[in-house]
Amino acid sequence: MLPEIEPPTLQTVGINTFTCPVRIPEKGGGVQHTVATIDLLAQMPQARLESCVSLMTDLLARFLPDIHAGIFPDLLRQMQEQLQAVSARLSMRFPYFIAKKAPVSGTASLMEYQCTFTATSSTVDEPLLTVVVPVTTLCPCSKEISAAGAHNQRAEITLTVQPLALIWLEDLIALCEACGSSEVYALLKRPDEKYVTERAYARPMFVEDVARKVAQQAMTHPDIAWFSVGVESFESIHNHSAYAFVDSRDIDRPAG
Amino acid sequence: MLPEIEPPTLQTVGINTFTCPVRIPEKGGGVQHTVATIDLLAQMPQARLESCVSLMTDLLARFLPDIHAGIFPDLLRQMQEQLQAVSARLSMRFPYFIAKKAPVSGTASLMEYQCTFTATSSTVDEPLLTVVVPVTTLCPCSKEISAAGAHNQRAEITLTVQPLALIWLEDLIALCEACGSSEVYALLKRPDEKYVTERAYARPMFVEDVARKVAQQAMTHPDIAWFSVGVESFESIHNHSAYAFVDSRDIDRPAG
Amino acid sequence: MLPEIEPPTLQTVGINTFTCPVRIPEKGGGVQHTVATIDLLAQMPQARLESCVSLMTDLLARFLPDIHAGIFPDLLRQMQEQLQAVSARLSMRFPYFIAKKAPVSGTASLMEYQCTFTATSSTVDEPLLTVVVPVTTLCPCSKEISAAGAHNQRAEITLTVQPLALIWLEDLIALCEACGSSEVYALLKRPDEKYVTERAYARPMFVEDVARKVAQQAMTHPDIAWFSVGVESFESIHNHSAYAFVDSRDIDRPAG
Amino acid sequence: MLPEIEPPTLQTVGINTFTCPVRIPEKGGGVQHTVATIDLLAQMPQARLESCVSLMTDLLARFLPDIHAGIFPDLLRQMQEQLQAVSARLSMRFPYFIAKKAPVSGTASLMEYQCTFTATSSTVDEPLLTVVVPVTTLCPCSKEISAAGAHNQRAEITLTVQPLALIWLEDLIALCEACGSSEVYALLKRPDEKYVTERAYARPMFVEDVARKVAQQAMTHPDIAWFSVGVESFESIHNHSAYAFVDSRDIDRPAG
Repeated sequence: MLPEIEPPTLQTVGINTFTCPVRIPEKGGGVQHTVATIDLLAQMPQARLESCVSLMTDLLARFLPDIHAGIFPDLLRQMQEQLQAVSARLSMRFPYFIAKKAPVSGTASLMEYQCTFTATSSTVDEPLLTVVVPVTTLCPCSKEISAAGAHNQRAEITLTVQPLALIWLEDLIALCEACGSSEVYALLKRPDEKYVTERAYARPMFVEDVARKVAQQAMTHPDIAWFSVGVESFESIHNHSAYAFVDSRDIDRPAG
Repeated sequence: MLPEIEPPTLQTVGINTFTCPVRIPEKGGGVQHTVATIDLLAQMPQARLESCVSLMTDLLARFLPDIHAGIFPDLLRQMQEQLQAVSARLSMRFPYFIAKKAPVSGTASLMEYQCTFTATSSTVDEPLLTVVVPVTTLCPCSKEISAAGAHNQRAEITLTVQPLALIWLEDLIALCEACGSSEVYALLKRPDEKYVTERAYARPMFVEDVARKVAQQAMTHPDIAWFSVGVESFESIHNHSAYAFVDSRDIDRPAG
Repeated sequence: MLPEIEPPTLQTVGINTFTCPVRIPEKGGGVQHTVATIDLLAQMPQARLESCVSLMTDLLARFLPDIHAGIFPDLLRQMQEQLQAVSARLSMRFPYFIAKKAPVSGTASLMEYQCTFTATSSTVDEPLLTVVVPVTTLCPCSKEISAAGAHNQRAEITLTVQPLALIWLEDLIALCEACGSSEVYALLKRPDEKYVTERAYARPMFVEDVARKVAQQAMTHPDIAWFSVGVESFESIHNHSAYAFVDSRDIDRPAG
Repeated sequence: MLPEIEPPTLQTVGINTFTCPVRIPEKGGGVQHTVATIDLLAQMPQARLESCVSLMTDLLARFLPDIHAGIFPDLLRQMQEQLQAVSARLSMRFPYFIAKKAPVSGTASLMEYQCTFTATSSTVDEPLLTVVVPVTTLCPCSKEISAAGAHNQRAEITLTVQPLALIWLEDLIALCEACGSSEVYALLKRPDEKYVTERAYARPMFVEDVARKVAQQAMTHPDIAWFSVGVESFESIHNHSAYAFVDSRDIDRPAG
């Protein structure tokens, strides 16, 4: 038998990895159809756990035909009320595509970025935004010590921000893409390949340089309350990754 | 040009997904050879970032022939000193095997558990321990409303604890295994299969029941400072998971 | 220096994991927007390898604004001609959603299925279709020997078919869903949960039973030239999977 | 009711993703402890399927305390006999570590390679060997057209061979490592980094060049009956991979 002790006061309960089609509004005015993985969680007093997962699925079912960020406040409020939850949280991860022109030839292609919206019932804020943005990093040390060439590789910037007002995914992604040695593209022609090669060689950066540069941009953004940025570089000369991370709460903000 | 603003005061830099063989001491007195994925991170003032990844790899190289938890304090102290870091952190994930007897036939087999040690330079504490333990959950609702049978499935308990004194992985895993509808085994014979089927049917549990039960056990453990427990159930009738989570910092501890 | 030996006569070259939005025609007459991962490969004589990856990306760019199965013949023919390839192959994996009613309450939800189209230039056939369909399996042995209950779990049926004529994904998926102990749903209410629990308990099946049943259905389908079916069951009492596989080329077809 | 048609004549049944510690003999004479994921499959006439998974687990249990390649013939023969199987197959994937010296400083480190042994009861041959070997590729086109630098990245060579006699993993891996623009290392000091950067820049190679070079080496190896080689390059300027593949059965062997 279990000892007769106090149960936990609060417990989080919910659904993970629920997959469904979603619509994401685009900065350009359109709507993008993509596919999301949803986690839906409620923080509950122990006494009220009974059947809350089934209530959640009922709620999801009602919103299912048309899931998008616009329903978050309503869904979370209903969830909190019906479950008598302390708080409710929804996160939604999805691939998002942005039309991008190659830097010289102008060839259009679509780049994919993994994005996440995380909304909670306890605030009236915009949802947290996370974007994962591939860039090229070219190693400053390798360039400096080598007679020719420099090792470079794909790296991933993961930027999470708490917006004070609507921030478009497009703008957050562009902020990150400007901060690597070079941008990454879905399709490049030869003059484009020459351009990105030379650009990366001219802008060598360690992961910590990329993280700092993203942090500097995010600090000056008027609509970002706080942020964190991680940069992982899949080293071309090693079997492991280099990693750097900055959290805005560890930064002394310049007097503004 | 970047605006001339203050750089971040503190930045985390390091190596991710470095893989190497490691030795883990077993409760029974032996030593287990397994394979670990190591993340090694230092929190640094911006001014000192230069070449810290290369210093880290030098340090790792010196310890490499024999990586085990016993080297953590030394490695982290050297890392902190040489990098003049604010703090250093090492985490090491590895599959760990425990010999387990089938419940009726006594057939011996080895069960695999994903485990993680996370140590930091800033404390003299034992490293944080994480164990991922597969169990069976059998749905109480399904049992109650059905004429026969009840849906059940594999679930995973992820328990992270901050020990006050040495806690064996074996004991932490046993604590978790006792908290599902039934344990999971590598190899079972027919009488064992009858036993685990009937045992699960006799002990229906939602994910939130499993999480609470693990929390109750962990609360009464004299050597656990704090813990968190997550339970994810790969539902056999659904395409998604049910999830529950408890953090000991959200619990009102019974007066002791 | 390399020894002066003959180079390989034929080599396959191409692009892997190119991600983009795609449109999939639905059986009901609509069009589904989803996201695909594309592999595009050409089998080439050694002499013609030069710059074929760049030619492929140019081709993809031209088709990019609207990728769907209807473009396969044209894209593959152009690719073969421009590259002077022996053959060209395109495969496209994507999550596909089907509206499904819960068995008793009729609650509508969307189930996700991983699907793949694989088309080659060397045939005028329909593309190969692969569907991955989650079902429940309930263990006949566990049911037989136990006083009550029976272990069950989510399993995945992977069916690949070479069609002789258009076969809808919806029909292929329905064929598979009928062959497990029970179907899996995105959303169920209590009467539905009772139904699927009892249905699974009434239809115990090993993975080999499921594979044989799918094979029997596929053998009698007039538009399937050949097929293979794999069934993997994520055992609820074990840490590993049970697996069964049938290839139609190993079957003695009944005289028709 | 199912139509009364012939069941499949042959079916494959077994266990997937069984994990356990294993021992691998090293070329240098030692024994390496690592962790393997095992798939164990039998091809069976339909009539004999009953309970074969349970027989397999019994067999595995008997060999469990000490799994290594030496037991394959015995395990497979027993499995075939006891199950009255047409054939039996075991595959075993494991990370394998090789001590490697940095090219200039001589710093020792351990590199990890994913390896697989696949043995079948139907032959008396050596097991099939698969090695996955990370290398650097540096793009010839990017080098040629750019004023300075050239994009490069980590790539993976996957070589599978059917040996006619014992071939050490160490030798197969060394064969692959010699075929990229540069080798990849776990740990490098500055003079090493200069060396590998310049070496890669001096040896630009497309994925198809790497695949052909590996194929040329494998073709001249006296103990390789047949092989296939795939090369995937995680492009640093793109979001997708470049891929090349050669199968020795598509090669016109030079008259020997």
